[in-house]
Amino acid sequence: MAKFERHVFVCGNERLEGAVRPSCRPRGGRQLKDALKDAVKAAGLKNTVRANEAGCLDQCEHGPVMVVYPEAVWYGFVKLEDVQEIVNEHLVHGRPVERLRLAESCLNTPSCPHRP
Amino acid sequence: MAKFERHVFVCGNERLEGAVRPSCRPRGGRQLKDALKDAVKAAGLKNTVRANEAGCLDQCEHGPVMVVYPEAVWYGFVKLEDVQEIVNEHLVHGRPVERLRLAESCLNTPSCPHRP
Repeated sequence: MAKFERHVFVCGNERLEGAVRPSCRPRGGRQLKDALKDAVKAAGLKNTVRANEAGCLDQCEHGPVMVVYPEAVWYGFVKLEDVQEIVNEHLVHGRPVERLRLAESCLNTPSCPHRP
Repeated sequence: MAKFERHVFVCGNERLEGAVRPSCRPRGGRQLKDALKDAVKAAGLKNTVRANEAGCLDQCEHGPVMVVYPEAVWYGFVKLEDVQEIVNEHLVHGRPVERLRLAESCLNTPSCPHRP
């Protein structure tokens, strides 16, 4: 293989206590990355898809968040029990999981329903 | 804005001492990310390009490495003095810096000129 067919970045950022914006790691970001890595391997995608830890992805109010490249599909408020669906639907079959997608209007915005 | 126009992930991984594969952080990965972030801001791209820290990108023998999405251009053996060129050429003008690109044959391979 050469490039990854898909490269998933899961936010594992943790701010200092008392920070204004929330952090993904204490909301489960690290476990998500580990579960995604395991599920990718179990689906036989180990050589074509990488589940990667990332620093702050800057969509903090929607965490835990992840982004799938090259298609730039963002998922937010992801729970451990969503991981298998993301792998089966998106990473195996190329169908993003619409119910978990962050709206374009929620990305990189100072104000949205999740960031009043 | 909505999605980032470009999202650059710079490996900041650091393995335990004595690990078989090398690590990007002690080879300058963290400083690269910081310099890239500063240069992106100085170029007026702060709202459209994100310079992101990443965990291990698994191209360890070519470090420090970074990858630019959505185009999936990989750079290796990047030095601090290369950062401005990456910003000016690739991130501002959309022209990848060919001299710094990792060859397809170097990606995700158990053996290449850098990984004998």
